[in-house]
Amino acid sequence: MVAINENYLKLKAGYLFPEIARRVNTFSQANPDAPIIRLGIGDVTEPLPQACRDAIIKATEKMGQRESFRGYGPEQGYGWLREKIATHDFQARGCDIDASEIFISDGSKCDTGNILDIFGNTNTIAVTDPVYPVYVDTNVMAGHTGAANEKGEYGGLVYLPITAANDFTATIPSQKVDLIYLCFPNNPTGAVATKEHLQAWVDYANSHGSIIFFDAAYEAFITDPTIPHSIYEIPGARTCAIEFRSFSKNAGFTGTRCALSVVPKTLEVKASTGEKIQLWSLWSRRQATKFNGVSYIIQRGAEAVYSPEGQEQTRGLVNFYMENASLIREKLSLAGFAVYGGENAPYVWLKTPNDLSSWEFFDKLLTTCHVVGTPGSGFGAAGEGYFRISAFNSRENVETALARIVKAFG
Amino acid sequence: MVAINENYLKLKAGYLFPEIARRVNTFSQANPDAPIIRLGIGDVTEPLPQACRDAIIKATEKMGQRESFRGYGPEQGYGWLREKIATHDFQARGCDIDASEIFISDGSKCDTGNILDIFGNTNTIAVTDPVYPVYVDTNVMAGHTGAANEKGEYGGLVYLPITAANDFTATIPSQKVDLIYLCFPNNPTGAVATKEHLQAWVDYANSHGSIIFFDAAYEAFITDPTIPHSIYEIPGARTCAIEFRSFSKNAGFTGTRCALSVVPKTLEVKASTGEKIQLWSLWSRRQATKFNGVSYIIQRGAEAVYSPEGQEQTRGLVNFYMENASLIREKLSLAGFAVYGGENAPYVWLKTPNDLSSWEFFDKLLTTCHVVGTPGSGFGAAGEGYFRISAFNSRENVETALARIVKAFG
Repeated sequence: MVAINENYLKLKAGYLFPEIARRVNTFSQANPDAPIIRLGIGDVTEPLPQACRDAIIKATEKMGQRESFRGYGPEQGYGWLREKIATHDFQARGCDIDASEIFISDGSKCDTGNILDIFGNTNTIAVTDPVYPVYVDTNVMAGHTGAANEKGEYGGLVYLPITAANDFTATIPSQKVDLIYLCFPNNPTGAVATKEHLQAWVDYANSHGSIIFFDAAYEAFITDPTIPHSIYEIPGARTCAIEFRSFSKNAGFTGTRCALSVVPKTLEVKASTGEKIQLWSLWSRRQATKFNGVSYIIQRGAEAVYSPEGQEQTRGLVNFYMENASLIREKLSLAGFAVYGGENAPYVWLKTPNDLSSWEFFDKLLTTCHVVGTPGSGFGAAGEGYFRISAFNSRENVETALARIVKAFG
Repeated sequence: MVAINENYLKLKAGYLFPEIARRVNTFSQANPDAPIIRLGIGDVTEPLPQACRDAIIKATEKMGQRESFRGYGPEQGYGWLREKIATHDFQARGCDIDASEIFISDGSKCDTGNILDIFGNTNTIAVTDPVYPVYVDTNVMAGHTGAANEKGEYGGLVYLPITAANDFTATIPSQKVDLIYLCFPNNPTGAVATKEHLQAWVDYANSHGSIIFFDAAYEAFITDPTIPHSIYEIPGARTCAIEFRSFSKNAGFTGTRCALSVVPKTLEVKASTGEKIQLWSLWSRRQATKFNGVSYIIQRGAEAVYSPEGQEQTRGLVNFYMENASLIREKLSLAGFAVYGGENAPYVWLKTPNDLSSWEFFDKLLTTCHVVGTPGSGFGAAGEGYFRISAFNSRENVETALARIVKAFG
């Protein structure tokens, strides 16, 4: 008899964002005239930068001539894109990262899930709480957890609460953990980590033989010059950290799809035989066997992010969303909400009023203000009573949404 | 201590195609003037169809206006693409497949690897020998096999030899197997399966509770009107088969990346509790959690395959490659080779002369004719002594390569 992966049966309800979509659809079918504004899912709304579009169109035209047609590319991505990323995003910040350590992919969601393929099943895994649900769900699916309890916490995972009390940066655990997921600037809380905080994690990982999965998808939104953009700005990270980055948020690629992972060649783990194994070679093999690279056309679009025009246009996009974030912080504070984040990240994290649960506040915001946000409890048990507002929308929509919220709650 | 996935250490040498690339690079570095012609990796060479390019450019321009900008799309693909596929590729052939059963992806290599995520670890797995290496390697990586023997066969897998004696279509096994990989038109042998042969597999699978993974990446190359293009042309397939398809070969998307899997909602497997589980819901969950959909721009390009112009242009491409295949068959036969395939598939499968091993013939062909092919043994132990020649190249290159081969071997 065929055996299915029964770990899937442990997964709680729907993945957060499909559940939000379901509730919004139900409401809008019942209220077809309600002018809904979406500040929920962290999806960008502004046009793809001109430089990227021009590059995509040029590459598409090149696909029309035999001489410049491109078939299968390198599974790890084209050298010209990996070189630009290494130079601009890492070496320019003093990070000792080589182009060959960069793997181009079609998304950080894919990468943070797929990376588990190269690890075994006996690792102790630490996640923050709240957390980006994909880290947890992919571990559940891989059989690295027990069942969920009534709060949605899975047995076997080590949850590191991030709360206002610790500035939404997890306390280094006293117990030993093997794989640690860190996301800074943080989704969902918008918090950032100082050099000292990251150094403490790197020191912990190196002394315990742990690996850090560092999700830097939002690094472009950092405004404070003292905050690191990459884990590799921290001495010692090359022997304990894998980093994930994306063009989704800085260059508006959520629907265009391009991202990258960084696996330093110095990252080694002992096999049970005692042999040292380079994670880079396992990840290379994984990608060559289960992936066929990102569309040539799209990689050319991503490359254009590093042109002078692309740099200016992406900076413009980031600044635009950060002005939204600033407005959200200001108006929600005025309306009496306790707000966090939004200064180095496109997310504002708020405490729900009147002890409403996260989903109660979601429904109230939807039905009274026609505004969609994301319930904090969808990110973990410790997110209960919190709520995420995203800065990804037009200025007009953000202002309208804020005016409705201030009117309803202020 | 961090545990790695030690199953990776069982993998033999490099994946086939990187190994070919390595040998070709070594040769061409030593012989920079040698005019190498590549008939090895099954990569298309002719321009992307005009209809697809036009659609990609139009979609890219739309990404430049806020109103028509697209961010995250449905992880399973846009409805307009899924509908067209369901109508043209399935319903038009009498297959009862609904658009909601189609999942758009970035490649069949990815899909055939990722599908294992939703299955357990106790299944008996059958592959043909020779076989597309990804089926085997992804099972090794998932821990579904033992170690490899000296012939490269992995313990625990059931190998079904395909040889001239059985027309390169595997004999239905006498033992019980749970998951069965079938690829028709076949990569690497170019063989096809009749309705009767597929019916025998479907009957076997339904009576044993097995699942067939049917890889139809080359269906567009079928010229014989009696040969099925889809497993769903066979009564009973909706309760036992998953199909994989790709735009790589018919529309030249190897570097553009778009493919699809079909998981009928009627496909159910019993969990250990006895509960019936719909594989469609597991695969939906898998894709929603570990994948973010194919680029909007690229999906528009794939959609254009179904326009009248796109249909005509892709038919033109397929016919062009099949004329190459015809030439290859003809000239190699004249040169005294025993040849198979190439009539309903873009691959010709030949017996090496003088009892040369597959890699010996590879090296000889490279060094004497400067032609790259694919060693049959790279596809499995029973492929030893065979060799694959691909029809994917320009007419001029194919003719030049054949002239050299006829001169050297004829």
